[in-house]
Amino acid sequence: MNWVERDAAVVWHGFTQMACYADNAPIVVERGVGRELIDTEGRRYLDAISSLWVTTLGHCVPELDEALRAQLDRVAHSTLLGNGNRIVIELAEALSRVVPVDRPHFLFASDGASGVEQALKIAFQFWVNRGVAGRNTYLAFGDAYHGDTIGSLSVGGSGFGTAIFDPLRFEVLRAPSFSNPDALKVAAAMVREHRARLAAVVVEPLVQGAAGMLIATSTEFAALQAACRAADVLLICDEVATGFGRTGTLFASEQCGLSPDILCLGKGITGGYLPMSATVASQRVFDAFLGADLSEATLYHGHSYGGNALAAAVALRHLELLHSMNVLANVRARSSQLRALLDTHVRPKVAVKDIRLVGLMGAVELDTRTDARLARRTCIAMVRRGVLCRSMGPVVTVVPPLTTTADEIERIVLTLAAALDEATS
Amino acid sequence: MNWVERDAAVVWHGFTQMACYADNAPIVVERGVGRELIDTEGRRYLDAISSLWVTTLGHCVPELDEALRAQLDRVAHSTLLGNGNRIVIELAEALSRVVPVDRPHFLFASDGASGVEQALKIAFQFWVNRGVAGRNTYLAFGDAYHGDTIGSLSVGGSGFGTAIFDPLRFEVLRAPSFSNPDALKVAAAMVREHRARLAAVVVEPLVQGAAGMLIATSTEFAALQAACRAADVLLICDEVATGFGRTGTLFASEQCGLSPDILCLGKGITGGYLPMSATVASQRVFDAFLGADLSEATLYHGHSYGGNALAAAVALRHLELLHSMNVLANVRARSSQLRALLDTHVRPKVAVKDIRLVGLMGAVELDTRTDARLARRTCIAMVRRGVLCRSMGPVVTVVPPLTTTADEIERIVLTLAAALDEATS
Repeated sequence: MNWVERDAAVVWHGFTQMACYADNAPIVVERGVGRELIDTEGRRYLDAISSLWVTTLGHCVPELDEALRAQLDRVAHSTLLGNGNRIVIELAEALSRVVPVDRPHFLFASDGASGVEQALKIAFQFWVNRGVAGRNTYLAFGDAYHGDTIGSLSVGGSGFGTAIFDPLRFEVLRAPSFSNPDALKVAAAMVREHRARLAAVVVEPLVQGAAGMLIATSTEFAALQAACRAADVLLICDEVATGFGRTGTLFASEQCGLSPDILCLGKGITGGYLPMSATVASQRVFDAFLGADLSEATLYHGHSYGGNALAAAVALRHLELLHSMNVLANVRARSSQLRALLDTHVRPKVAVKDIRLVGLMGAVELDTRTDARLARRTCIAMVRRGVLCRSMGPVVTVVPPLTTTADEIERIVLTLAAALDEATS
Repeated sequence: MNWVERDAAVVWHGFTQMACYADNAPIVVERGVGRELIDTEGRRYLDAISSLWVTTLGHCVPELDEALRAQLDRVAHSTLLGNGNRIVIELAEALSRVVPVDRPHFLFASDGASGVEQALKIAFQFWVNRGVAGRNTYLAFGDAYHGDTIGSLSVGGSGFGTAIFDPLRFEVLRAPSFSNPDALKVAAAMVREHRARLAAVVVEPLVQGAAGMLIATSTEFAALQAACRAADVLLICDEVATGFGRTGTLFASEQCGLSPDILCLGKGITGGYLPMSATVASQRVFDAFLGADLSEATLYHGHSYGGNALAAAVALRHLELLHSMNVLANVRARSSQLRALLDTHVRPKVAVKDIRLVGLMGAVELDTRTDARLARRTCIAMVRRGVLCRSMGPVVTVVPPLTTTADEIERIVLTLAAALDEATS
């Protein structure tokens, strides 16, 4: 058996129809270097999806490797339940200087969805602890994506066949998708109307990523935050996808003028090296959980590997590198270049319905009325040309590492244009 | 500020009342070696909780460190969504030879709770895909613990203040706790009665760990499995806590004669080094998800870091070491020794209500009627004597690494006895 056959025989790939796994040009990665992945046959691919939006600086980054090796010489992991770990404290202190949250406290987990679950439970228990009854639902947006566990799936929209799990999902109030230009205004009005029922509003600041990069106007978010403050409803910003420079600022909340009560982080937090997520709570939220030992005010939630020391060491060094390598400036420059090149080489094509881009989160939406697999087939043609790409429904996503060069951006766009020609010919 | 103060200022520790964090003898770990953790002041502690039941061989194990370094030279991570990674395939192949699941397929995540969520969603969608209506609930046990995300919390019992989240939890059918000797018989009868509504039964084989090591008779499980098979209800075994040797066999399912349709793995899978969990589905379950590309039969669930390459490399080497180091034999020998020593030195004490032990999962339940914090205070006294321990309600847990020596077992028991004397004097 070759590697793809061995893979399909034992590994169940998420978001993947396994019956045609081998037909969709999968690559079996063996090594990485810079922004390239190398498969078991030695073929090289430019990573234009950042291994699903997690890779920031590239693969095999010497400084990150060194930080991981140094921590490995100390200890790989020790539990954070009731005890601490020095590198995790250092990471939390470093993060506390940059997150847009008032006097932040960090609760770590590993999957991004777990970080969202923690946020939802903290917001819910916040009101219970304060003796406020009835605050037991959330306001979330149409087309939102917050992860795949039942809680995060409940606040998510109806994408990816979610509806079949309705009997397991709790109900939420649903504001419009960002595809509606009035989404944030409507949400603010809903907050005012339903304030007595709402524990929190959950939103992806600036861009609904998994929905296909649906972008809201950054200036519209301030009104939503004001409505939350006025109505005393908590604001949860899910920056799992947008955090750590992906949109051109360290956090998308900055561009939106947001200072959430609770912030969710993941993906880029370790530069794409290791699983880590974090739920960041403001001092006011944190204070509501203080009480007597063993009391009901305590947050009884914790994952075994939350605050893993190896992941923390990489995350700490990564945060320093984002600054010292001036990565955000590169994101903004490459974003402008990517926009111009997509406008020139891709937008004129008949099959292109829309192009959306913020920072280095790009989506080329295709007209799939006559071919549901057009985006899929375009990505297959890109992979065959050495650029690793992935479709989401009718969308080809373009999410390269944050250190991508001008030449690489050009290669991605020209490859996409050629692949689209092939797929539509 | 000292390290504990710095810790409490920025890190929110799970399952921990932060108002008295500093009072409960937390240690801030800086290094580890063998079965000892070393804090920022250079004090050494025997790790008698295996960093919350994850550490198997100890800390800074040369062979695991070497495997991690070798993979780091190749690549830290690449996405499993639609693509593969060589080391992950090798891990899945190695696991497939030892898990008690028929022709297994592995879906990876990072938090154990996510692994359970995947199992629940797979079981639910299995029936949808097969066109069977109404199979939309689960049978779970009283006092069960399956994790803290909303789905896993829903199948869990009512421990740890779970009830406040009832408005978010979906309802399940509830069999008795393992504290009831008829729990498994009752469950089997409930399966027969409610078969038309049940997607799956969810059970911790042999021992309900987080409930305080409530142990069921291993021979009783076969009848539950037979009832599931006869009623065509899926069986999910959650071995996040029990897997990888903790109970004296590689999986607790082996002692119970179980071959589940779906198996959840986590904690010990990486020897306590890195976050990784896995949901293992039988061929029959997997086959129900095969269909056309982009079709609704697909499982649309996947975590960004699922199948992390660094974690996979450690997990693969760890599986080899469990065998080559003959770890299971040590678990069984040390378990017998631990039982005898606890009977001699701890059971006779007035404050001891019960002692429960399977493999190296031990619980000493105290009479806390006059002092709710007795177990807590006992653990504090143990930590001050250099043995890291942690209480759960009225229970002092004893869960040392699987390579613990006879001398270390003796030290743990004698320290516990002395600490209990101090706490009750």
